[in-house]
Amino acid sequence: MADSILNRDEPHHFGAGPAKLPSDVLKQAALDLVNYQGVGLGLGEIGHRTETAINVINDTKKNFKELLNVPDTHEVFFLQGGGTTGFSSVAYNLVANYAKKHDGKKAKLAYAVTGSWSDKAAKEASRLGFDVDVVVDTKEGGYSNIPSYSDWKPIDADSTAYLYVCDNETVNGTEFKEVPDKSYLPENVELVADMSSDILSKKVDVSKYGLIYGGAQKNVGLAGLTIYIIKKSLLEQPTDKEMASYGLPIVPIALHFPSAVKANSTYNTIPIFTCHIMGLVTKKLLDNGGIDAIEKQNNEKAALLYKTLEKYPGFYNIRVANPAVRSNMNVVFTLNSDDVQKRFLSEASEKKLTGLAGHRSVGGIRASLYNAVSLESVKLLVDFINQFAEKNQ
Amino acid sequence: MADSILNRDEPHHFGAGPAKLPSDVLKQAALDLVNYQGVGLGLGEIGHRTETAINVINDTKKNFKELLNVPDTHEVFFLQGGGTTGFSSVAYNLVANYAKKHDGKKAKLAYAVTGSWSDKAAKEASRLGFDVDVVVDTKEGGYSNIPSYSDWKPIDADSTAYLYVCDNETVNGTEFKEVPDKSYLPENVELVADMSSDILSKKVDVSKYGLIYGGAQKNVGLAGLTIYIIKKSLLEQPTDKEMASYGLPIVPIALHFPSAVKANSTYNTIPIFTCHIMGLVTKKLLDNGGIDAIEKQNNEKAALLYKTLEKYPGFYNIRVANPAVRSNMNVVFTLNSDDVQKRFLSEASEKKLTGLAGHRSVGGIRASLYNAVSLESVKLLVDFINQFAEKNQ
Repeated sequence: MADSILNRDEPHHFGAGPAKLPSDVLKQAALDLVNYQGVGLGLGEIGHRTETAINVINDTKKNFKELLNVPDTHEVFFLQGGGTTGFSSVAYNLVANYAKKHDGKKAKLAYAVTGSWSDKAAKEASRLGFDVDVVVDTKEGGYSNIPSYSDWKPIDADSTAYLYVCDNETVNGTEFKEVPDKSYLPENVELVADMSSDILSKKVDVSKYGLIYGGAQKNVGLAGLTIYIIKKSLLEQPTDKEMASYGLPIVPIALHFPSAVKANSTYNTIPIFTCHIMGLVTKKLLDNGGIDAIEKQNNEKAALLYKTLEKYPGFYNIRVANPAVRSNMNVVFTLNSDDVQKRFLSEASEKKLTGLAGHRSVGGIRASLYNAVSLESVKLLVDFINQFAEKNQ
Repeated sequence: MADSILNRDEPHHFGAGPAKLPSDVLKQAALDLVNYQGVGLGLGEIGHRTETAINVINDTKKNFKELLNVPDTHEVFFLQGGGTTGFSSVAYNLVANYAKKHDGKKAKLAYAVTGSWSDKAAKEASRLGFDVDVVVDTKEGGYSNIPSYSDWKPIDADSTAYLYVCDNETVNGTEFKEVPDKSYLPENVELVADMSSDILSKKVDVSKYGLIYGGAQKNVGLAGLTIYIIKKSLLEQPTDKEMASYGLPIVPIALHFPSAVKANSTYNTIPIFTCHIMGLVTKKLLDNGGIDAIEKQNNEKAALLYKTLEKYPGFYNIRVANPAVRSNMNVVFTLNSDDVQKRFLSEASEKKLTGLAGHRSVGGIRASLYNAVSLESVKLLVDFINQFAEKNQ
């Protein structure tokens, strides 16, 4: 890769997503877009039922399963779409599964609303006509904390199909650091997590989840692909006729989990190039020490940044006060005036520290520390944060 | 682009899709994947609400509208997904619109089943619980003809929201060459067309359609993006509450047309890189004479191939006997035994004529002549077809 046209002088980019990807992965993907394995055609031009495409899908799945140590009780598949497709499809499919297991009974769905993404997910499930029970809602506190489970509304174990959490709230900067244990979550209620913005950033005990899903566009690849890990027993569904007789909405076929699994993720033409990028990203993670290594680095990056911000209390205000629920992926903080914030962003930009503006709904600064953001980049950001505080506080 | 690593020695590829794209488009896309406009980041790494991303979306829309001369009465937008997402979402959204206009009345939906894609679309609409009226079904004849409109079942003008056609049946090799006129289609019934495999291959009088949609992965770009052209009056929908009171299924939010339009196609994170490739493809079409020029070339390519096959009746059997409904995009034919077909494919492959195996459901040979397949490639295929026949018949 000595050739120059695919080299780049990259900024230290902290964008929240679609987000930075490893340069070497992108370079390889660029070559493969034009000419895959020397056949004179790019990967995106090849039929999705060819051996070539099937190998890409299977290799990507294999890498992913190895990284997260996915047990045989669980199945991995891909759908088109992003987080939004994800939370709609989760509700449809798991309600259908619950009805299958309970003679057509309509499930109650427990949602933890701890940020704007879980809020959207809960609203969509309700909008689709399902019986949503919000067990915690931190909106009043600006979604800046996750209360301990003992403060959540108890789950109705007799009627609830799943408890839904958004594991990392990209906009608000909170992250679940521990899975609810049996003292809160009844054994027969499945745990469902949207891990769109922290999947593959840390170890996960998959066996504790009924379903995990995540859009690819943060740690894993380009927008357009969503990864699902589902407990195999959750794939059973009533027939369409039974669904109609239960008065349940039919799952649109492009979002129907059993069809996707049966077709090895190609029921709805898979965006194979996007899948390949995920294959390259996961391969690189495996080569570099797997999930342990990347988790260690992510912990180090986040700790360094939070510690630096904490040195200047009153000048930098970390949005999430409680260290136990601070996101390792999205570090959200404010300065004391819009003017100073603007100056912070513009001076940062001069040092090639980019993508730091907060989400439009909360303002402030957001530094996203996804896998592809190096420790070196974070150190440079930390240097700047120190300098800026010392000059301005 | 004298640089060697992005050059390729490409075969003459006639794959049915995902399909061949112009080499120069892919080379540019490869560069933009790594470093877009010199910012040191690739286009897929940039937030979908940045000015950069919005420009990509708007430029792509503009090119597309210019090519198809889309009138102001119609709106263009993108969703994630492919044909399957397309036909599900069409049914949901247009039933909702019909109810809005008719005080909650449930629409009847007319489907023309002329191949495996329209068959899937009709089955899905029915599966979702809608009242589907199949007005023509050519399955018994192996989907090898499109009868004239006078032989179709009349449409119930009082209750029907739309007539659905699949403009080009990729698997079966038929294509609509004329839009149903008023003698068949009642004025208040909208015409809906899946143009996944022939969009941008020919002129279309958009004003005659209520809705046109197409997956990008044939003539337009990579799998993962679907383009919609909708008459603006079809975007109105009842509130969710009204929908529930009408007993109609709620449109999943990721497939909800009004939300997509309102968010300029970014409601569900748009696969911006895929959109950009469509931008490059449409720009190239405009630079090369627009839709007239490509239509002329596509007519020439298809005419040459069909004419050649017709020279050897009994040796090559064109699947679609009626020249008036033969697809310009997918030329499907058989030889008289599996052995000869296998030999045809293997000898073709030796001459770098690839992607010619028919769809697994119909077998035989299929040559797909999408926009990116050059006249030169078709001439080489024709030479081979002549030689093979003369040697073997």
